[in-house]
Amino acid sequence: MGDASPAAAATSAAAAEAVTSAASAPRPFQELLLGRIRDVADFPQPGVTFKDITPLLADPATFSALVDAFVAHAHRPEVGPVDKVVGIEARGFILAAPVAYRLGAGFVPVRKKGKLPGATLEQAYLLEYGDATVEVVTDAFSDGDRVLVVDDVLATGGTVEATIELVHRAGAEVAGVAVLMELSFLGGRERLAPVVDRLHALLTV
Amino acid sequence: MGDASPAAAATSAAAAEAVTSAASAPRPFQELLLGRIRDVADFPQPGVTFKDITPLLADPATFSALVDAFVAHAHRPEVGPVDKVVGIEARGFILAAPVAYRLGAGFVPVRKKGKLPGATLEQAYLLEYGDATVEVVTDAFSDGDRVLVVDDVLATGGTVEATIELVHRAGAEVAGVAVLMELSFLGGRERLAPVVDRLHALLTV
Repeated sequence: MGDASPAAAATSAAAAEAVTSAASAPRPFQELLLGRIRDVADFPQPGVTFKDITPLLADPATFSALVDAFVAHAHRPEVGPVDKVVGIEARGFILAAPVAYRLGAGFVPVRKKGKLPGATLEQAYLLEYGDATVEVVTDAFSDGDRVLVVDDVLATGGTVEATIELVHRAGAEVAGVAVLMELSFLGGRERLAPVVDRLHALLTV
Repeated sequence: MGDASPAAAATSAAAAEAVTSAASAPRPFQELLLGRIRDVADFPQPGVTFKDITPLLADPATFSALVDAFVAHAHRPEVGPVDKVVGIEARGFILAAPVAYRLGAGFVPVRKKGKLPGATLEQAYLLEYGDATVEVVTDAFSDGDRVLVVDDVLATGGTVEATIELVHRAGAEVAGVAVLMELSFLGGRERLAPVVDRLHALLTV
């Protein structure tokens, strides 16, 4: 997801509580992931608690299990074939690229404006304060490509919504959106409901 | 490599000529890669020709072959065991993360200053004009970890040199550096020679 998004943000005592008090206790896989995600207070700005996934990425067994979980999701019959996996700059690249590799799919980067060379499609979207623009190269997709969008955190859903718009404008089809962690209190799922049939979160807080 | 680096740059007629006229003709794998790398004129600034790898990433067979080639290199006896793979923001993430996954290693992001949460080590380095700083989280490595650095383009070597400094300061050991493409006319190999025993480029232009 976009690094500058205030929604790269999360949560705090309230969200942590929501996890531990969930009616269905976290299963072992979720516990494995949660045990390697670190809360960092006041990042990227005062009052925000950031969900830091660097300990998860650095641990071979957890990183491997995470990629495998995305792949298992992508193999479910309702997702259907996947031709391309989209990663959203910059942390999204880290999860989406191994998933593309394991699926035998192509990898397509969606980046902040000005980072991609050559002819691009661009899509502006609103942030909590101000706006931002993401881009994709114009020939990244073939007509009818089925595209899985993989990202780390689903917050307000603005970046993912803009990414889906780019996929559609390029003539491709969204097979689904899969994220490591959904911050459900920010309403991203509701925002994406009109444009995404399949939104899968490995963790929901 | 750093997006802002003027050396994200390349080349031109002269370099292209160097490839096609090399004493040993490109082998099929190199031809596969070169056929999917696109020259974009005047990006990121006038007079510079950029090597665009997005067509390579988007093609499943080529992306897969590229990751496999990095993995085959990492498995060579002289590289030895690899505990962590470092990716350098942002394009480096796309290549380094699948290599980490395939090696069963952890993934460690090296990012531009201010992007990583929590306690970090930082390392400044000189660019052609001005300077830049890269960071890594302080606990990304365990003492004695053997680290493979994977990146897309080796240009002047400044970002990789700073990355190696971070690895050493964190108490880890550099198993090697592997890049998709070395721009040999920019002298990165010579710059890194004092600090890297094993520098492997899949393509050299």
